[in-house]
Amino acid sequence: MNHNSNNTQAVKLTGEEIAKHNSRESCWVIVDGRAYDVTEFLPEHPGGPKIILKYAGKDATEEYAPIHPPDTLDKYLDKGKHLGEVDMKTVEKEEKEVDPDEAERQERVARMPILEQCYNLMDFEAVAKRVMKKTAWAYYSSGADDEITLRENHSAFHKIWFRPRVLVNVESIDLSTTMLGTKVSIPFYVTATALGKLGNPEGEVVLTRGARKHNVIQMIPTLASCSFDEIVDERQGDQVQWLQLYVNKNRAITKRIIEHAEARGCKGLFITVDAPQLGRREKDMRSKFSDVGSNVQDAGGDSVDRSQGAARAISSFIDPALCWDDLPWFLSVTKMPILLKGVQRVEDVIRAISAGVHGVVLSNHGGRQLDFARSGIEVLAEVMPELRRLGLDKKIEIYVDGGIRRATDIIKALCLGATGVGIGRPFLYAMSAYGLPGVDRAMQLLKDEMEMNMRLIGCSSVDQLGPEFVDTRGLSMHTTGVPSDTLGLDVYDPLVGPRESFRPEVRSKL
Amino acid sequence: MNHNSNNTQAVKLTGEEIAKHNSRESCWVIVDGRAYDVTEFLPEHPGGPKIILKYAGKDATEEYAPIHPPDTLDKYLDKGKHLGEVDMKTVEKEEKEVDPDEAERQERVARMPILEQCYNLMDFEAVAKRVMKKTAWAYYSSGADDEITLRENHSAFHKIWFRPRVLVNVESIDLSTTMLGTKVSIPFYVTATALGKLGNPEGEVVLTRGARKHNVIQMIPTLASCSFDEIVDERQGDQVQWLQLYVNKNRAITKRIIEHAEARGCKGLFITVDAPQLGRREKDMRSKFSDVGSNVQDAGGDSVDRSQGAARAISSFIDPALCWDDLPWFLSVTKMPILLKGVQRVEDVIRAISAGVHGVVLSNHGGRQLDFARSGIEVLAEVMPELRRLGLDKKIEIYVDGGIRRATDIIKALCLGATGVGIGRPFLYAMSAYGLPGVDRAMQLLKDEMEMNMRLIGCSSVDQLGPEFVDTRGLSMHTTGVPSDTLGLDVYDPLVGPRESFRPEVRSKL
Amino acid sequence: MNHNSNNTQAVKLTGEEIAKHNSRESCWVIVDGRAYDVTEFLPEHPGGPKIILKYAGKDATEEYAPIHPPDTLDKYLDKGKHLGEVDMKTVEKEEKEVDPDEAERQERVARMPILEQCYNLMDFEAVAKRVMKKTAWAYYSSGADDEITLRENHSAFHKIWFRPRVLVNVESIDLSTTMLGTKVSIPFYVTATALGKLGNPEGEVVLTRGARKHNVIQMIPTLASCSFDEIVDERQGDQVQWLQLYVNKNRAITKRIIEHAEARGCKGLFITVDAPQLGRREKDMRSKFSDVGSNVQDAGGDSVDRSQGAARAISSFIDPALCWDDLPWFLSVTKMPILLKGVQRVEDVIRAISAGVHGVVLSNHGGRQLDFARSGIEVLAEVMPELRRLGLDKKIEIYVDGGIRRATDIIKALCLGATGVGIGRPFLYAMSAYGLPGVDRAMQLLKDEMEMNMRLIGCSSVDQLGPEFVDTRGLSMHTTGVPSDTLGLDVYDPLVGPRESFRPEVRSKL
Amino acid sequence: MNHNSNNTQAVKLTGEEIAKHNSRESCWVIVDGRAYDVTEFLPEHPGGPKIILKYAGKDATEEYAPIHPPDTLDKYLDKGKHLGEVDMKTVEKEEKEVDPDEAERQERVARMPILEQCYNLMDFEAVAKRVMKKTAWAYYSSGADDEITLRENHSAFHKIWFRPRVLVNVESIDLSTTMLGTKVSIPFYVTATALGKLGNPEGEVVLTRGARKHNVIQMIPTLASCSFDEIVDERQGDQVQWLQLYVNKNRAITKRIIEHAEARGCKGLFITVDAPQLGRREKDMRSKFSDVGSNVQDAGGDSVDRSQGAARAISSFIDPALCWDDLPWFLSVTKMPILLKGVQRVEDVIRAISAGVHGVVLSNHGGRQLDFARSGIEVLAEVMPELRRLGLDKKIEIYVDGGIRRATDIIKALCLGATGVGIGRPFLYAMSAYGLPGVDRAMQLLKDEMEMNMRLIGCSSVDQLGPEFVDTRGLSMHTTGVPSDTLGLDVYDPLVGPRESFRPEVRSKL
Repeated sequence: MNHNSNNTQAVKLTGEEIAKHNSRESCWVIVDGRAYDVTEFLPEHPGGPKIILKYAGKDATEEYAPIHPPDTLDKYLDKGKHLGEVDMKTVEKEEKEVDPDEAERQERVARMPILEQCYNLMDFEAVAKRVMKKTAWAYYSSGADDEITLRENHSAFHKIWFRPRVLVNVESIDLSTTMLGTKVSIPFYVTATALGKLGNPEGEVVLTRGARKHNVIQMIPTLASCSFDEIVDERQGDQVQWLQLYVNKNRAITKRIIEHAEARGCKGLFITVDAPQLGRREKDMRSKFSDVGSNVQDAGGDSVDRSQGAARAISSFIDPALCWDDLPWFLSVTKMPILLKGVQRVEDVIRAISAGVHGVVLSNHGGRQLDFARSGIEVLAEVMPELRRLGLDKKIEIYVDGGIRRATDIIKALCLGATGVGIGRPFLYAMSAYGLPGVDRAMQLLKDEMEMNMRLIGCSSVDQLGPEFVDTRGLSMHTTGVPSDTLGLDVYDPLVGPRESFRPEVRSKL
Repeated sequence: MNHNSNNTQAVKLTGEEIAKHNSRESCWVIVDGRAYDVTEFLPEHPGGPKIILKYAGKDATEEYAPIHPPDTLDKYLDKGKHLGEVDMKTVEKEEKEVDPDEAERQERVARMPILEQCYNLMDFEAVAKRVMKKTAWAYYSSGADDEITLRENHSAFHKIWFRPRVLVNVESIDLSTTMLGTKVSIPFYVTATALGKLGNPEGEVVLTRGARKHNVIQMIPTLASCSFDEIVDERQGDQVQWLQLYVNKNRAITKRIIEHAEARGCKGLFITVDAPQLGRREKDMRSKFSDVGSNVQDAGGDSVDRSQGAARAISSFIDPALCWDDLPWFLSVTKMPILLKGVQRVEDVIRAISAGVHGVVLSNHGGRQLDFARSGIEVLAEVMPELRRLGLDKKIEIYVDGGIRRATDIIKALCLGATGVGIGRPFLYAMSAYGLPGVDRAMQLLKDEMEMNMRLIGCSSVDQLGPEFVDTRGLSMHTTGVPSDTLGLDVYDPLVGPRESFRPEVRSKL
Repeated sequence: MNHNSNNTQAVKLTGEEIAKHNSRESCWVIVDGRAYDVTEFLPEHPGGPKIILKYAGKDATEEYAPIHPPDTLDKYLDKGKHLGEVDMKTVEKEEKEVDPDEAERQERVARMPILEQCYNLMDFEAVAKRVMKKTAWAYYSSGADDEITLRENHSAFHKIWFRPRVLVNVESIDLSTTMLGTKVSIPFYVTATALGKLGNPEGEVVLTRGARKHNVIQMIPTLASCSFDEIVDERQGDQVQWLQLYVNKNRAITKRIIEHAEARGCKGLFITVDAPQLGRREKDMRSKFSDVGSNVQDAGGDSVDRSQGAARAISSFIDPALCWDDLPWFLSVTKMPILLKGVQRVEDVIRAISAGVHGVVLSNHGGRQLDFARSGIEVLAEVMPELRRLGLDKKIEIYVDGGIRRATDIIKALCLGATGVGIGRPFLYAMSAYGLPGVDRAMQLLKDEMEMNMRLIGCSSVDQLGPEFVDTRGLSMHTTGVPSDTLGLDVYDPLVGPRESFRPEVRSKL
Repeated sequence: MNHNSNNTQAVKLTGEEIAKHNSRESCWVIVDGRAYDVTEFLPEHPGGPKIILKYAGKDATEEYAPIHPPDTLDKYLDKGKHLGEVDMKTVEKEEKEVDPDEAERQERVARMPILEQCYNLMDFEAVAKRVMKKTAWAYYSSGADDEITLRENHSAFHKIWFRPRVLVNVESIDLSTTMLGTKVSIPFYVTATALGKLGNPEGEVVLTRGARKHNVIQMIPTLASCSFDEIVDERQGDQVQWLQLYVNKNRAITKRIIEHAEARGCKGLFITVDAPQLGRREKDMRSKFSDVGSNVQDAGGDSVDRSQGAARAISSFIDPALCWDDLPWFLSVTKMPILLKGVQRVEDVIRAISAGVHGVVLSNHGGRQLDFARSGIEVLAEVMPELRRLGLDKKIEIYVDGGIRRATDIIKALCLGATGVGIGRPFLYAMSAYGLPGVDRAMQLLKDEMEMNMRLIGCSSVDQLGPEFVDTRGLSMHTTGVPSDTLGLDVYDPLVGPRESFRPEVRSKL
């Protein structure tokens, strides 16, 4: 029986038959009830062959689905390797080893707080950390190297303090603003984050629904778990979406993607410029290791395992040669406004203005790329005075992302000159923990916080915000302090409050 | 039997009868032995209907009393809804669920330190934290958002260091000063704090007595648990009180309050300007949640529960439209000196001087309103040099509140130019833990500390204090430090002192 | 039988007889085998009557000895109240309550590290903390208020970094220098600290012996446990001592003390100017409380207990009126060089020069007086450039004390312009833990450290040290950092190193 | 029987015979199967006699081998004291006391992570800490005094942040550079560290092999466990080595060493100038103490034990008189480029240029010499602008070592002007934990990290790096922060996320 090219067969394949092809020499896998011959594809797999071979002759759907959009196999695997439908009843269900970590997680899920107990964006993260699968949590939460920038992103906002004004009529507060010509109800957008199905089986479309409800823009990620069209199809009415783009080495593919996005109504093209190579995220790698690598003892440096976590698995197509010279071409192939996502110094903002793009996102990729990159908000505080000095501050729109968790963070960014801010992980965590209601409540909490804090800073609309409302003197101080005086701390007897008293009458009772 | 308007009845209502009115359709509650029909009032309740419905058909006194002044029902509920006295013997005592938290608290109360063990204001807080009811503690101790400003308030004083002078005759120390024309024995006043009965069944009158004993001024809060008149009635001799005012949307009410206060002898009117909307305090909300919300799973963002803690419950009347244009009216309706409480930038101090008010309180509302508002003491250090530069420093009196826990804090504020400081929470904690003796001792400790520290700084009276005695170079640095080097700290082997020696002769004995 | 004035009796008093005088009305106590009638003295006792009444009718030696020099009763109690010798066999030995703290301490003493295990001055403190009596430790180790200055004193040295030079011949190192004309072998002196017998039954004479061995100067404290003459008698050869002086309200007494000191050969008079009133040290007070106060519930602020720890008990004679005008008198009554101990600002150093004194000690009294006083080393860094600017830097000798624990600290002080440094607590701890051998080793360790560090900084003698060897840019930054991001820290998942591997072959073995 | 000078004997010595010579009067020891009479050598032993006497009459090989190169006895012990071979079968195997620490360590070794679990250089340190012998770990990991500089070295890099540029073609990255004329594949070298056999029985030759594989230079340490020739013999092809030199008091020996190194092909001579005396490292001393000193109670300061850890034991020959005047002689005796290792201030760099040397290493000896010496990277940031101002920046090559753990650290050093960086401990730890494969992987990880981070900073070759890519504003801030507010922290109730919910349906299941 020859299955090659046989994708119109009536007779379904059996599990038994597929199970024979369980080696590097002949490797079949099942995905979503269909079988595929991936033998020749093994060496090309961006995530390395090892992870595929783990499922050779078996059903790989559970591992495959969250990290590949549904149209991946159609796009990347020769039709001749599509073997056809499988009679899933004949596929042996694998007895999974009882994973004590997973059992504990299930218990935590059973006891998870109800949605009303979440009072701020941090709370969703606290819940997600407890209820998400370990590997999914590791992928979402990890950052580059020592995760210094990852944490600095939010921490930087703590170095900015307010100079509120009082006795201003703040009865009605208008949070709305305009981003790339679109009126939105509050100055944040849902920024692009990869692999939404790791957190929720429906993936990025949940965010589409949340964004619609709160009238904010969603940026569609190149590396979504849902296909681009699925996410666009979810759009309703005059809802606006943008596209985040990793530029492919093959510009024809890139052109196709851009043209398709424009045709489907995307209103902005955000070219990621901070990721010529996707970052090493050791937390992610360590979590992945326990899955695939734990019983292999390699001998030396040569064989350093390159299948390092989810990030690497999905990004090998990105073009590290992308440069300023490419911008005219981008401007020529689309009418969408073009923005550079990941700019990190004032010189490059000025160059972007010269290059004729419509905006930049000051971003360090959520702390996932270059550790010790400064926070977007710090770069913003450096960029705007210089642009004002040069009379360039009205030339483009400037966005910031990274570390935004509170409405005060949004207000700080706007005070310093941002048009708006991107928020990514917090909505992923809300979605992972509570689905759409979580995303909905997260956005509502931000609105509630922002309305109140606008009142308290003394501004009734966002156009009133400006640098005179913030004190940023501590913002660019990156100090670690002198290493601790270990012996001194050890001998110091800390002060304590009054001790409990055991009065006779109490003592007798106890 | 029709009880409508029947408030002269001889026959008392029975618990059984009231218990029938236990729903949204007909909701009666008992307060202080009298029944009220609050069915129509439910949607108007500032704290939301949910908390009232919890007591529908039951005795609500315990919950009601600490957070409503005694004259509230007379003022806000139509007389026709006053149903008359209840025969309390007929009201079923509710079997309270045994609350393990409460049982533990009672044990802590039994073992609480005696008053003499409190050596400073922090000690009262340490005791209060252990012996207060959880919800009361949460209401008093909570702050806005991440409680950064809450903690910064005291922390800011730690950034100010002394430059004491020596060899000055400090045999006799005079701590007295004059505030708005009143001679006081030490330069602090008891600032306004809400809901005193949460901490002590007698409420704010305890503070009145303490202030009298130590000859300091009490500022009466709008949101006291005692009624304004009760607090004024407690005054004796030439004791002086001020009024803190939340401005009502209905200016007629505001006018009545001001005129009444002036008539009753208040010597200063402090208009709160930092609270157009009362703050979200998540610690308070979380504590409240466990009371009322825990078995309700809401579906989405729309239904975000608005009954968020005690703060919201009591503040819906405040006018967010209050602005500078309103000041002439205030100046026209009273002869009391008017001060703005909650000013936070030098520009607004200057504007306040132009507006003709008599003073300002540099304050961020104890960290309960806008998180990342700077401390009053930091603002003071910014304000005074600018006022001196403009020749305005003698035009008004400047007060500071927030974070004052030590006499050194008071001295620092006076060195920087404050006329005096307000102290709030510490006296609440002293009162909650030990009643009047606690307040008395707290004030005495401050006097003892201040007398000593005046000697040590080399000043025998408060008018000698000035900026040359303090080093404030670190005051306005708001830095967080680089996020910790997790891996590095993990591998570092800290130095330790000498280990115990097990000499043979010792070993043999053990 | 009348014992009044009967101090030549042959018949000894009996315990039984004394035990009758156990009240405020008639209060006798035994000290060192002799009885005293202190009834009339009770109200005058600087430490308050309560602590004496605890021993009314009993033997008070153990409590009395460490905190009173042997000649105290002769000096302060009328001879008529000296009742004569007691037959100690007849005095009932008090059954001491078994104190579990004390039992644990005894165990720690049995296991204490041997002297050779102490490699630095911190190590002695670590041992002393474990083996000293709780109240003695509390007295030595405590500081003012929040003990911020106490800790800042050493911490300040951590803000000073070296700029060493290399390729200098450092074969032989000369640590010697000259202080007030005396050649010493290393630039530190043993500064005055009170109540040496709390740590060691022999008291300050142990320090005399240690100082002699290492050829350094000892400053004799006014509040020593040994009498002044005992300490001077212990001197040998050309050993040099200085006198630390608390100025008595009665200048006649002060004059007598000074003249006696000069007559007995003291070579310097250090007048303490930072202690018009001795500090409140809450750790000391809390430790004392458990001794005397724990079963007394006082009612209010009036009765704040004034017998607050050892410091207060011994200092009531100090004159808070001492001022600059008194200095000519001091200069007139002695030929000893006069230095002011406790100067804390450059203005006062300049005034001291004008006043004609011979030196100052920049000191905050070991952090025991005014909290938030800056460290002596920080003041030094402020003082010297100003003196150099005015051409006054050679006019007097400048010393620093507070927080010196390492030879690098001494070198830093000398680089910044100090003639020498005072070291107090570390030698007390060494003495308390190990007696004279401890003091000896502590001094030797400092010499070893200093010789090495002189080599490493590239200076072969102390006169080569100068400001070009230190970087003090961080010295005067008193910042606290933004309060911690509690929620953020809570959700952050710290990076960890590789986990243990349970390979099959390992697992099978375990 | 007389064994003197009898080193050609056929009859082997017996253990019984040797065992008789077990005292200070006659002390024989066995090393590597041969006996030696060290009686007369005892007082000369740099590490003190005590440690030798511990093995008097016994086999000392295990203790001796890691800290003495194999040719030591030949070089330093008179041939007449070489007693000849020992019949090892006759030597009594000592019953070692069961050491619970060692047993636990063996368990940790059995469970040690596999090499693939190490993702960065910190990971090797984490593993080494767990699996190395306590004394070896203490020797490698310890630093001077409070180990402040030890930790500052890495911490300083955390104060430097990136200003990356985007949209640069970074497809191919060239990490290679040239050091002293040698082309290397990445800009680090393996710096000199002593006593490699403490971590791995083969010692420094393992590092030779690792350096060869990755085409980087190894600096051979004077104090290696392997002999100089063993390390050179391990070299292959055109592999390049440098020599680190401690200058002997006897210049003839020094000259011999230099000439030998040059003859054997060393391409650079690094004279250590920061160690006129080797540092006190208390962690090392404490660890050593438990070996030799624990049952000796010394009486006083005189007898401070001078055999303080491994550092002292091996360094007594170093000349503390070495100075600038010696440099012409060094330049005259070799054609190798000469560099000064351990320079720490800009003045000395300028002087080095005048003196005609070819380079300097800005270093504080890994934090092992002078505590509070600044990090090399901080000194570099001070040095380069000054050299550029004087037009001297091209005159010499400048290297930095200390604290380098990440490729970002290397990039930062190069941005600030270093030609390359030295890395020491990390490779020792990799070697100690995993041998050559560990070293190999450690170097490969650095290459992987550096390639990625070059891309992310926007530079495709190391010559493009420059100061415009880094923000060093926080680098020279050495602050400690105000000592913590102990009482305040104690009473603060930290915010926490949502608690677990025990809904009825959950409660019933649990």
